Amino acid sequence: MTARQMKLGTFLTTGGEHSGAWLHKDTPSQSRVSFPPYLEIAKVAEAALFDLILVGDVVPAFDTPVEILKHNAGSERLDPFMLVAALAVTTRHIGIVPTGSASFEQPFHIARRIASLDHLSEGRAGWNCVTTANTSMAWNFNLDSHLPPEQRYARAEEFVDVVTGLWDSWDDDAFVRDKASTVYFRPEGLHVLNHRGTHFRVRGPLDQIRSPQGRPVVVQAGSSEPGRALGARTADVVFTTHQTLEAAQAFYRDIKERAARFGRDPGQVQILTALMPVIGASRAEAHAKLDELDDLTPLPVAIARLSAILGDIDLSSYAPDEPLPEELPSGQGILSRRQSVLDRARREGLTLAQLARKISGTRGHWTVTGTASDVADAMQSWFDGHGTDGFLLVPPRTPSSLEEFRTGVVPELQRRGLFRTTYEGKTLREHLGLRRPARGEMSGAALKR
Amino acid sequence: MTARQMKLGTFLTTGGEHSGAWLHKDTPSQSRVSFPPYLEIAKVAEAALFDLILVGDVVPAFDTPVEILKHNAGSERLDPFMLVAALAVTTRHIGIVPTGSASFEQPFHIARRIASLDHLSEGRAGWNCVTTANTSMAWNFNLDSHLPPEQRYARAEEFVDVVTGLWDSWDDDAFVRDKASTVYFRPEGLHVLNHRGTHFRVRGPLDQIRSPQGRPVVVQAGSSEPGRALGARTADVVFTTHQTLEAAQAFYRDIKERAARFGRDPGQVQILTALMPVIGASRAEAHAKLDELDDLTPLPVAIARLSAILGDIDLSSYAPDEPLPEELPSGQGILSRRQSVLDRARREGLTLAQLARKISGTRGHWTVTGTASDVADAMQSWFDGHGTDGFLLVPPRTPSSLEEFRTGVVPELQRRGLFRTTYEGKTLREHLGLRRPARGEMSGAALKR
Repeated sequence: MTARQMKLGTFLTTGGEHSGAWLHKDTPSQSRVSFPPYLEIAKVAEAALFDLILVGDVVPAFDTPVEILKHNAGSERLDPFMLVAALAVTTRHIGIVPTGSASFEQPFHIARRIASLDHLSEGRAGWNCVTTANTSMAWNFNLDSHLPPEQRYARAEEFVDVVTGLWDSWDDDAFVRDKASTVYFRPEGLHVLNHRGTHFRVRGPLDQIRSPQGRPVVVQAGSSEPGRALGARTADVVFTTHQTLEAAQAFYRDIKERAARFGRDPGQVQILTALMPVIGASRAEAHAKLDELDDLTPLPVAIARLSAILGDIDLSSYAPDEPLPEELPSGQGILSRRQSVLDRARREGLTLAQLARKISGTRGHWTVTGTASDVADAMQSWFDGHGTDGFLLVPPRTPSSLEEFRTGVVPELQRRGLFRTTYEGKTLREHLGLRRPARGEMSGAALKR
Repeated sequence: MTARQMKLGTFLTTGGEHSGAWLHKDTPSQSRVSFPPYLEIAKVAEAALFDLILVGDVVPAFDTPVEILKHNAGSERLDPFMLVAALAVTTRHIGIVPTGSASFEQPFHIARRIASLDHLSEGRAGWNCVTTANTSMAWNFNLDSHLPPEQRYARAEEFVDVVTGLWDSWDDDAFVRDKASTVYFRPEGLHVLNHRGTHFRVRGPLDQIRSPQGRPVVVQAGSSEPGRALGARTADVVFTTHQTLEAAQAFYRDIKERAARFGRDPGQVQILTALMPVIGASRAEAHAKLDELDDLTPLPVAIARLSAILGDIDLSSYAPDEPLPEELPSGQGILSRRQSVLDRARREGLTLAQLARKISGTRGHWTVTGTASDVADAMQSWFDGHGTDGFLLVPPRTPSSLEEFRTGVVPELQRRGLFRTTYEGKTLREHLGLRRPARGEMSGAALKR
């Protein structure tokens, strides 16, 4: 098998990722802190031969007015690390990637927990390193305001280096456990990190034998300039989100070129693009499914989301059942999506409520609505067009959307030779086609920043 | 059932707690980061109807000379939180208590992970709150030296209050998930902590429904003055270690009286005493078992441990196969055990090597060596004598010592009416006879320090 094949993963959320999912008549009224629904989704993803599941950590913005927040199912969530440890011993093949914040955690804790996950899962661990944009999360960690983005990324650069260094605390064969000589480990196999940097002083070593993958898989999502620099230097997998193939291709080229400039093999950085698949037996059925979910999205949540995209402008004075006026107040903050959203409203003749629900339901992810074959076509065009190395699914409903993907799209991709027909490797690195790094091998820490 | 019954728990360590356990011929040469041996021990403890398993976090002192450290099996360990999350979904009845440090963690993380453990285990979670005496651990968290003990405890007092407060973020019935009204939670059921203290500023809320136990069980071990104060004010379970019934009784009375002075029901603080049981078919067999393990303890490890107990004095100039001289240099540090150890050496006519191995093998825990009936007798005398409410076992070897305890001692205790014959409750609080606190009920945070 030498043909290039797609890598596939999915976000792991019970109920689903669409804002209206929890209100769907077929969604059980279940708590999001109950384990069995997570395991059920993970098993579907594993039956679909996915490379990995990713557990996000989007803590709700508890600074949002409670009258909006109360409609949001995202207000409850299990701690990602506790959830993935439970999944590690109840699944067999799939890679498991929790999100951990470089802004609010300590690198020793992250290194130890992710290495433990690698041991528990026998080589299937990854770490989604984020800097956490959410200010209300900072309030839980002795901070009155979050660090500015450049400081967050400077800290994250050093954080990843410390974690990687701790994973290399021991030679792979340092623990001999020899009863005859009563020697548990060879002292020459111990490598004390002794890191003294700007943000961290961490002596080490980690109190664990080197883990099955040597270094668990580092995943990062960052589209900003410092985010791209961090990902290209240190990540094994870069996760991204785009609306058009052209934008995806530009990002793809940029990350691979940056990786090469860091002296890395660009093939050892896998890029995964977010995709929300809405699958029907016919295109009409698929569109009806999405419309149904959009209509279920609570209006206050939808309006708040639209307001944010338009630049935090106040939409309360406009009638929900009429189109937005031509003239709107100018906005503030990140405005990259404002014009395309307003263009869409005019093009499709949408009322304010319709626009808000369509925008907020899919949360800005690339959404492909159609038959399984349509979805496979879209994925193939992005994959063959070097817009991505694979996809991270954002399933609108779980487990049903994933089940539809498994039974419809996966066989179609397999027929086209674009996806594996069995797990050929055991570890997440093997699934992803990533080498197992030797201990002390030149890593991010050694590469110039 | 109204008669007072013992509470039982065990430390969870693969191989065993005795320093010589890993060198025993019947101990597999297994890594301590492999999950199946932990699960096997947990299942034995659950078959024995124990209240709880406790996962310690004694990170090895990596400042110890490597020529000593290399003989120590404690050099590897899974992250306690990852281990317990995996155990939560693979066991059914037993309480699960990981150790988390109030000195090196953040209260939001601990609150969230322990609450998640309570959800994953359906009400079986506890938290062993420690302040971590180990200086070499501080070096991993941006510190050149550890906080002095009084500052560690001041921080811990506030830490526990924040954790407890976060566990009370929501009314038990706050999450209504009502599709008709599209309301996920009732705003009146949300209670934002807004803690602003000396060591922490934590806004909250926790992003989880209140957990099955309301508040997971807080376990603490602390014999010092500030340790006793913290335990008596905030702990549900106080873990301790004593060599004599008289010392145990004095501690027991002191903690119960302190709890009452804080306005608490002393019956709602359970005291568990460490016990290393060495069980044989005959007393001679039991003593032979302990001697065998003592003899296996690597001499450098034993001498280093003895040296520490004697006050960090240099023992290298004394012959290992001769008794220690009458005159020894005076020591420094905590010297509470020095004289009793020297008395024992003279009384039993032990050589330096013999003394060192006997002292370090059992790590200073109360050791009962004899038949199952002898062990039950000793436990009963401490329990009936109000020296303790139960025991936390320090099994010399695992799973074999626990298996011997399950098949020998447990039936004996049951015959005497001292221990349950089935799990009567579902949650750890129910096992321990602890009430489920109402949200906002006067807790440690409201009690005067």
